[in-house]
Amino acid sequence: MALEEISRNQSFGGQQLRFRHNSSVLSCEMAFSIFLPPTARNKNHNMPVPAVYWLSGLTCTDENFVQKAGAQRYAAELGIAIVCPDTSPRGEHIPDDSEGAYDMGLGAGFYVDATQDPWAPNYNMYSYIIDELPSLINTEFAIDGSRVSIAGHSMGGHGALTIGLKNPHNYKAISAFSPICSPRNCPWGQKALGLYLGEDRAVWAEYDTVDIVLKNPTRLPVLIDQGENDNFLKEQLKTELLIDATESSGYPMQIRMQPEYDHTYFFISSFIGDHLKFHAEHLAS
Amino acid sequence: MALEEISRNQSFGGQQLRFRHNSSVLSCEMAFSIFLPPTARNKNHNMPVPAVYWLSGLTCTDENFVQKAGAQRYAAELGIAIVCPDTSPRGEHIPDDSEGAYDMGLGAGFYVDATQDPWAPNYNMYSYIIDELPSLINTEFAIDGSRVSIAGHSMGGHGALTIGLKNPHNYKAISAFSPICSPRNCPWGQKALGLYLGEDRAVWAEYDTVDIVLKNPTRLPVLIDQGENDNFLKEQLKTELLIDATESSGYPMQIRMQPEYDHTYFFISSFIGDHLKFHAEHLAS
Repeated sequence: MALEEISRNQSFGGQQLRFRHNSSVLSCEMAFSIFLPPTARNKNHNMPVPAVYWLSGLTCTDENFVQKAGAQRYAAELGIAIVCPDTSPRGEHIPDDSEGAYDMGLGAGFYVDATQDPWAPNYNMYSYIIDELPSLINTEFAIDGSRVSIAGHSMGGHGALTIGLKNPHNYKAISAFSPICSPRNCPWGQKALGLYLGEDRAVWAEYDTVDIVLKNPTRLPVLIDQGENDNFLKEQLKTELLIDATESSGYPMQIRMQPEYDHTYFFISSFIGDHLKFHAEHLAS
Repeated sequence: MALEEISRNQSFGGQQLRFRHNSSVLSCEMAFSIFLPPTARNKNHNMPVPAVYWLSGLTCTDENFVQKAGAQRYAAELGIAIVCPDTSPRGEHIPDDSEGAYDMGLGAGFYVDATQDPWAPNYNMYSYIIDELPSLINTEFAIDGSRVSIAGHSMGGHGALTIGLKNPHNYKAISAFSPICSPRNCPWGQKALGLYLGEDRAVWAEYDTVDIVLKNPTRLPVLIDQGENDNFLKEQLKTELLIDATESSGYPMQIRMQPEYDHTYFFISSFIGDHLKFHAEHLAS
């Protein structure tokens, strides 16, 4: 059996499930969560449902979004599955930041494929998200692998934007809350990309949303919400660089600045309904 | 200042707030959370809003419901405040179960006024919920103290039912998820009531919903949801004793058994919208 069930809870007529599996690309055991809407209860694959992949931020696991976002109500109504991966490889044998910092190593995979020691054998979240996990999900659940989109928060917003923009044939749409828009230009990103990818900043640009937008002709639909009262906005998130890049490249992303909202799940829960409706529209075809 | 603000987060156009204050009835510092809907933003008290008090279950604090129930969306739409107290007195000087058990002492106040040592000086959650906390809330926020109802989960469902039924002039309605219906007749209740109240079981009956229903003419509107897949249903919750009591006393409580749902916040979040709409109807007048 490729999957071992950890938990199963009824939720809004659907099921919130959690599994563990062995990841070959990360060389460790991983957990993920998946919400199946009521329309997916019939496991005979006659009616596969579309799916949104949700990538979480620094320090999170696959469980934060499941417990705090309040997304199940909308996903049940819209008939969408939500797949929540963890944010890094896990386990006692997995290298971590030498001082246990929250912004590097465990809980901080940054959705890249690392090239540097000691990270390279395990920290391959980019390949895990685009290849290994979807292959498993599409095999084990009644998911329509041709109708998938991607979303995330903060580091996970960076992950959703870079992965979606670089793989436009895999996804119908992208959305993000409070994304790290230009890791090349902020302390979180400079630390992580330097350690995972080495000091050649041309390589970093491959994982920088602003650089990708400026160089890449992809025009997938994108919705971004950013709180104006977010403590990380100026130093780490750099939303203004992305706004400039979309304007100079003529990419009509929908970037909404939300007065008074901050960086927490209280912000995400307030607008996750908008995001799932946005995905549902683009997943319908 | 009676209140010290701990946190403030924008949520669904309203505000999720957390405060600490000194409780004289509990002889300790307490935290509580309160959600103020958008209609309460104007603090001039011209338009005070109704409030639902939410009592949480064993091991919880004031934060579990705030983070996991997804209630803010409905409360914002309905224009209702939600007040979430903690589940026991707190602090290093507060007596706890000698073995740190989860079902007695800290996190397990059972919403009674204790009469036994060492609990009596602090474990007075009954008086805290009906008197001290509402007095503070009604003074500090734009809440209409004449339009209040009460709800809760598990131990907190027991609290909501007993407090509401014994104080019908204070509340417009009661609702509960998975309540401990007859603490006199289950292991959790027998342990806690024995230690807080002593061995005279006639005293326990004052805090037992089944006994109160059989003796008390109160007929406040009551809505209860109970999952059929709840691990605690048979041994601890004893819903069937409450159903029998409502039938023999002619009390038309709405008790809904929900197939496949369990004891978790996944159950609560699935039906909290129904509960808040039920409260809003009874809080309208």
